[in-house]
Amino acid sequence: MKLVSYRERERDAWRAGLLHEGKVKDIAHACPGAPSTVLGLLEEWADWLPVLQAAHEAQDGWDLEQVELGSPLPRPSSFRDFYAFEAHVMTARAKRGLPMVPEWYHFPVFYFSNAAAFTGTQANIRRPKATEWLDYELEIACVIGKAGVNIPVERAEEHIAGYCILNDWSARDIQREEVKVGLGPAKGKDFATSMGPWLVTPEELADVRLTGEKGSRYDLEMVARINGREYSKGNFKDIHYTFAEMIARASEDCSLYPGDVIGSGTVGTGCILELGTEQYAWLAPGDVVELEVERLGVLRNTIGE
Amino acid sequence: MKLVSYRERERDAWRAGLLHEGKVKDIAHACPGAPSTVLGLLEEWADWLPVLQAAHEAQDGWDLEQVELGSPLPRPSSFRDFYAFEAHVMTARAKRGLPMVPEWYHFPVFYFSNAAAFTGTQANIRRPKATEWLDYELEIACVIGKAGVNIPVERAEEHIAGYCILNDWSARDIQREEVKVGLGPAKGKDFATSMGPWLVTPEELADVRLTGEKGSRYDLEMVARINGREYSKGNFKDIHYTFAEMIARASEDCSLYPGDVIGSGTVGTGCILELGTEQYAWLAPGDVVELEVERLGVLRNTIGE
Repeated sequence: MKLVSYRERERDAWRAGLLHEGKVKDIAHACPGAPSTVLGLLEEWADWLPVLQAAHEAQDGWDLEQVELGSPLPRPSSFRDFYAFEAHVMTARAKRGLPMVPEWYHFPVFYFSNAAAFTGTQANIRRPKATEWLDYELEIACVIGKAGVNIPVERAEEHIAGYCILNDWSARDIQREEVKVGLGPAKGKDFATSMGPWLVTPEELADVRLTGEKGSRYDLEMVARINGREYSKGNFKDIHYTFAEMIARASEDCSLYPGDVIGSGTVGTGCILELGTEQYAWLAPGDVVELEVERLGVLRNTIGE
Repeated sequence: MKLVSYRERERDAWRAGLLHEGKVKDIAHACPGAPSTVLGLLEEWADWLPVLQAAHEAQDGWDLEQVELGSPLPRPSSFRDFYAFEAHVMTARAKRGLPMVPEWYHFPVFYFSNAAAFTGTQANIRRPKATEWLDYELEIACVIGKAGVNIPVERAEEHIAGYCILNDWSARDIQREEVKVGLGPAKGKDFATSMGPWLVTPEELADVRLTGEKGSRYDLEMVARINGREYSKGNFKDIHYTFAEMIARASEDCSLYPGDVIGSGTVGTGCILELGTEQYAWLAPGDVVELEVERLGVLRNTIGE
């Protein structure tokens, strides 16, 4: 299933919908008693997941062009972003003349970022005034659908409601300065994160799942294009730490809640910082940034003024 | 005024109360139409602030011993922690043989931390299983009562609903490892943050306010005691960056919302990491940690098993 948050007009509240054959079906209308938001559904996920499919049969539905899609979670409960692709960490460090950190291989590392600046596909992204070096980051996110603490790796996937494409927009000049102080990043990342276009539940990916001892990877190609030109190309199966391992780490002595978002970190080649600005310019107003992941769709944003 | 979040029994929801002459007066009962939670009040702060005082006159009230106090905001909208006391940064770096970072003087730096692990005074703090080096941090927090973006320094204090004591509990061994990878801290800090005992509105501090060009500092002594022994001693007036400057920084190209919490960072001498473990042991189960700030009260927690 593909879940969306949609609205008809900018003043409306975001509502939970199911995308089926190009139509958005309103879940609360189709399933009597169901919460009207995706967060509401996630909070009672075990109850609603088995009945959501019924919304596919609903007669009423919007064409995709008739509605605006937001982030599948317009306001996540929290946002943790990991650093789970080895190639990205290695290349980004090498660019600064730094060797790989041995600790990176000991445990998955993350930072908390701003859960209040999420936006969806088609949204315009405003470039922060203080940045000249605006970048995208091609990532996958998973969304938590079941609370837990000290979740073991082998049970962690039970806590995943679904997967999305995530673009962790980054102001590299701001980030470069602030991280010298040894905290963050924060201002380099807090102005926008886009997620979407929809939340894909795990059963849709069963045939491309690669099961390992420490959880699943997926054979899904990941591509970024700027104004139609291919910039980044990677595959979700190359992730070093699985989402199961990330969830186990995040939940050590710390409760996870429905609506928490966990980002994978950037796939190898998945940002301009890695590619180098000799051949790839920083993003500028008017640029169209498309992140495409097989089965998960295309997350498309335009850089605004 | 002093606002609290209180409950009679553990299963109850947290309710907004006003503390007056040792009694907790329920705000929604005393002020018809008022929201029942502190977050609800903050979301309509301009409307409710002028009438809250009326709750002081309410006849019904709880003795402090009859109720449990939570964090004044049981679940902040977000939590940013700054690094605004120079002495703390300097000493903490010197301990690691590092000089002061010049960038620290260019702008106030912060990181996002876990807004879902807040607790109040009297709560037991569980030591994470993986840590031997449990520490406290003596800080002040301000709570946002008015949304805004790109807030100028000179208008920033209009966005502050009040001040609290904050203890940013820290697992130093976990933190030391994870920050080597260049993100965070996250797991070193995400298990607990305590705030309280109440939210003090700015007018109560008017006579100790030191007004400067870039906002206010307050002449308020700050002390930490472990099992009755004084560990830390500082003063809020020694802060390098004011909360006004922190709010201006945090809101650059990023919206702040009611219920956002902004921590000052640790006052000089305000944690065991700074004091050194030659004379001060890491915290252990049974230790009673009291943070006292003049006018703001005493935030008292016990380390659990």
